[in-house]
Amino acid sequence: MPRPTRHVFVCSQQRPPGHPRGSCAANGASPLLQAFWGELQKRQAYEQVAITYSGCLGPCDGGPNVLVYPEAVLYQGVTPADVGEIFDSHLEKGEPVQRLLASAAAW
Amino acid sequence: MPRPTRHVFVCSQQRPPGHPRGSCAANGASPLLQAFWGELQKRQAYEQVAITYSGCLGPCDGGPNVLVYPEAVLYQGVTPADVGEIFDSHLEKGEPVQRLLASAAAW
Repeated sequence: MPRPTRHVFVCSQQRPPGHPRGSCAANGASPLLQAFWGELQKRQAYEQVAITYSGCLGPCDGGPNVLVYPEAVLYQGVTPADVGEIFDSHLEKGEPVQRLLASAAAW
Repeated sequence: MPRPTRHVFVCSQQRPPGHPRGSCAANGASPLLQAFWGELQKRQAYEQVAITYSGCLGPCDGGPNVLVYPEAVLYQGVTPADVGEIFDSHLEKGEPVQRLLASAAAW
């Protein structure tokens, strides 16, 4: 792929059921990743945005976690319904979605 | 984890044997990831550097691929023997290792 302007990492870490840390997979990471990829395709934004799944990003209990570089912005508790707004505001205009930002304690 | 100064993504994509695109896993991504985690532990650099595995980063045939943000520097053909130099030069001093950089065509 070409070097993207913004790169979105969707944590897709799995852990066994009942694991004390939980996991982003258990919190809905898979449909979220599909929503990001679907939105990327819909907007044909392959030259500007990359969507990649990743291993654990750290603060599991607020997941699913979504990390955007180069700004190093971490979103938590993201749902498929938020993906359009993240594209509109952050990925296209460079304005992070404030209501989804991780707390300063988490990141 | 705290927000790192630099974040290293080690592509760990797997594909079936004989797949035409190959994969970073087939090219040694797993021992490479272990080398990065080992070096992180050895240097106790958890406050400055994060190491995360990721899905496919694109140019599979030159893998294993290692992507460093916030600079968006892509390294290709990285081996465990290169990890110390990447820490010394790039992750600690901010000077990318020129000999490992992906070509302009790949990234």
